[in-house]
Amino acid sequence: MERLAVIDMGSNSWRLVVYGYEPGTAWWSLTDEIREAVRVGAGMGEDDTLKPEPMERAVHTAAVFASFCRASGVERIEPVATSAIRDASNRDELLDRIRESTGLEVRVISGEDEARYGYVAIANSTTITDGYGIDLGGGSVQLMRIVGRRPGEAVSLPLGSIRMSERFLPGEKAPSKAIKALRAHVKEQVAALDWWGGGGRLVGIGGTIRNLAAAAQKRMDFPDVDVGGFELTAGALDELIELLAAKPASKRGNVSGIKPDRADVILGGALVVATAMEVGGHDTLEVSEAGLREGIFLGHVLEERDPPLFEDVRRQSVENLAHRFNSDADHVNHVARLSLEMFDGLREAGLHDHGDEERELLWAACLLHDIGTAIDYDDHHRHSHYLILHAGLPGFTPRELVLVGLIARYHRKGDPDASELGDLERDGDQRRLELLCGVIRLAEQLERSRDQSVAGVRIGSANGAVVLEPRQDGGGADLTVAIWAARRNADLLAGALDRPVEVAP
Amino acid sequence: MERLAVIDMGSNSWRLVVYGYEPGTAWWSLTDEIREAVRVGAGMGEDDTLKPEPMERAVHTAAVFASFCRASGVERIEPVATSAIRDASNRDELLDRIRESTGLEVRVISGEDEARYGYVAIANSTTITDGYGIDLGGGSVQLMRIVGRRPGEAVSLPLGSIRMSERFLPGEKAPSKAIKALRAHVKEQVAALDWWGGGGRLVGIGGTIRNLAAAAQKRMDFPDVDVGGFELTAGALDELIELLAAKPASKRGNVSGIKPDRADVILGGALVVATAMEVGGHDTLEVSEAGLREGIFLGHVLEERDPPLFEDVRRQSVENLAHRFNSDADHVNHVARLSLEMFDGLREAGLHDHGDEERELLWAACLLHDIGTAIDYDDHHRHSHYLILHAGLPGFTPRELVLVGLIARYHRKGDPDASELGDLERDGDQRRLELLCGVIRLAEQLERSRDQSVAGVRIGSANGAVVLEPRQDGGGADLTVAIWAARRNADLLAGALDRPVEVAP
Repeated sequence: MERLAVIDMGSNSWRLVVYGYEPGTAWWSLTDEIREAVRVGAGMGEDDTLKPEPMERAVHTAAVFASFCRASGVERIEPVATSAIRDASNRDELLDRIRESTGLEVRVISGEDEARYGYVAIANSTTITDGYGIDLGGGSVQLMRIVGRRPGEAVSLPLGSIRMSERFLPGEKAPSKAIKALRAHVKEQVAALDWWGGGGRLVGIGGTIRNLAAAAQKRMDFPDVDVGGFELTAGALDELIELLAAKPASKRGNVSGIKPDRADVILGGALVVATAMEVGGHDTLEVSEAGLREGIFLGHVLEERDPPLFEDVRRQSVENLAHRFNSDADHVNHVARLSLEMFDGLREAGLHDHGDEERELLWAACLLHDIGTAIDYDDHHRHSHYLILHAGLPGFTPRELVLVGLIARYHRKGDPDASELGDLERDGDQRRLELLCGVIRLAEQLERSRDQSVAGVRIGSANGAVVLEPRQDGGGADLTVAIWAARRNADLLAGALDRPVEVAP
Repeated sequence: MERLAVIDMGSNSWRLVVYGYEPGTAWWSLTDEIREAVRVGAGMGEDDTLKPEPMERAVHTAAVFASFCRASGVERIEPVATSAIRDASNRDELLDRIRESTGLEVRVISGEDEARYGYVAIANSTTITDGYGIDLGGGSVQLMRIVGRRPGEAVSLPLGSIRMSERFLPGEKAPSKAIKALRAHVKEQVAALDWWGGGGRLVGIGGTIRNLAAAAQKRMDFPDVDVGGFELTAGALDELIELLAAKPASKRGNVSGIKPDRADVILGGALVVATAMEVGGHDTLEVSEAGLREGIFLGHVLEERDPPLFEDVRRQSVENLAHRFNSDADHVNHVARLSLEMFDGLREAGLHDHGDEERELLWAACLLHDIGTAIDYDDHHRHSHYLILHAGLPGFTPRELVLVGLIARYHRKGDPDASELGDLERDGDQRRLELLCGVIRLAEQLERSRDQSVAGVRIGSANGAVVLEPRQDGGGADLTVAIWAARRNADLLAGALDRPVEVAP
């Protein structure tokens, strides 16, 4: 496994992130991370100079990060600096001090490059093809357009959460006049972009946006999952702004989901996001957990592609996760094949009317249903569920993630319960889950001996019952286990279809 | 990885269990399992002949298991039959039919061998050195003595749960007269063993005992862990017996923890266990999740040893789990070294009076604290906790398992809360956890760069504060990260010691 460290010297927090990856493949994971709230841009608003204390913190943190890389033997390091350092008149002083004390050659990236890395992060962690992206940092905000999965217009504006907070909301209180002034300032600059808005999806990245999403999520009846794919509505954001504005700045970090070290800049950041959404006519902001650092990392590992994109983000997420837990690829792919054949056959027979969305979730659950055996064979369906929810699947919404987790959870036994979706439950989910779990459960049993002896399943009918007809390729295989196992696991599907399910012969 | 399948043809259930292992090492795990309630011994009580229907079920199940092994390519198969088949006058008919239809050569093991495999399972899954074992099956019960970890006296008695239930409790009701008669019958045979009882630990194995433990556990405020190491008290068992006896036989499977297919024999089994405990003077039965199948499997992989035992069950459990999740062995062993040095140093300085028990739990948590990174670096402390609780650690009691899990859970952040132990909480646990988590947290930070640059830690004092003095071997290493990281993570230990904790220099 190769390792690459990215040091993201943001205006608010600095992060050292170490990625492990297998060159030539798409397998990767984050293996270590140190975060430090350096706040290098603190107080630089008026004269664009880095102040002595933040500079001290910056040099010290750079030394810590460099030591870490040296000590842990990570040789490829990409240190990049963004808005606060980029815009500082005395930035060379800081960069010289860092170079002298640590040997790190920091690359100061332009606003354009920053937006470009944001695009790479967004396009590799969501399914967006056409729409917009927003990356809110402490010093600047990057707004960008995405057209056919390729980068479109992009801009970096000096409207970061620290900058706006220091300028408009410097005190403990947030007077409504100051809030209005902040919004007007942001609106003026964003409205000048004639390409911003006008429909299409909007994806947001950066720590402020992740914190706002986490806070909104915690105010809902939400399953225990990360914020990746969460849809932050304009209404929920307005509620959060009201809640935050009513508290003194020093107490805003007490709101569940908000990191205490962002207490004084979270409201300013929220107002920038809300205003950009309003100007662009966006009701919803999808959140990605990726960021500048993933943009830089993926730019490296996918450098032979232009733009550096995974072909299919969801497929990549699912296969990466299955690979990490050493699933038996022949087995899980065959369970997927049998499941999809049954799903399609039942649809053709008019027995359900679910579509491509459910079909894809079923496929994902099939690939992941056994990853829990890495924990323990006993109850491995429960462990697969835990792993799916917590190891994450970029490109899937929380609702989709939870559905995939539940299909895997009930692939062997138990009765699925749609109420586990909490506020993510929609009409028909109980029946939807029963059908999908009923199908995977039969596919798993038809492939119980893990040898692909059942090559396929035809859907027939007889006397009002649905008849599954296992098919062999070539013949001669022993279907004893498959038929024995499938027959005793047909109840769930029968219930979902409201008729008996038989396994031929 | 090699695979070995054990087919356990018990009097009640049959199981096919596939184990994966790396020959020449101690790493193993269970990779697949099929269980079938064959009940081969049903109805054979009066004339010791296997009845036609159970025999049909047996032949069919053998065919299914054999197909599974063939299809999934498991070549080494150990099929063994116990009490019901052993004692049947027509057993050759069954074995011939199985041989003809499946090719399986079933080995009928003697009562003596059955007890011996039970001993191997018990001695490799608990820390017992001197005491007793009980293995309750459907046809027979094996009682054994363990002396200095070696097998002592052993016997197999025809007092299995099916046999006793069919003879004494054949109906829906359980009249107290019938219960008394069953107990008297068991007592007579067990009391004749002059070596049974007289103090020392008692360990129980087998499905009936696991179910009784699960039922008792579910009636407590118990963390979500398996029954391995659970201590079933005579009082709790008596309560369960009362509860079960008050229900008709067909409803006894509704008691949470009891498998429905054991409904009609669980009470008979419970009475056998209770009587054996009473005769032996045992107040408590420790439960092991291992069984005959692990006895057979471990007998193979440890065959070069006599008896086939792991040297140290707990160490083996912890190292096996750390190995399965690819922990960075240098790092975790070094965190353990630093933690134990601090633990000892603080004890010598009179700052706590915890002993070897806490020391061992701290060691185990250190080896396992990072296994959660296999799931996701984010929140890996939570994932380590999940893995420890659910992947299991044979040889540790549930209380110890939960403590190890909590120490790992709080190795980076958060405030440990002893109430997560539920009914397993004991006096002083809150302080105990704070101290152990405080120590591992500092050790982890002193080894933050994973390079063992801090070779050790001396405990000093100055002005009422505890001073940790990191030590280098040879010198020249860069301790920047270690000291920076440790200083910001000393609060928990300071709270546990009620005094400031400083990191020198």
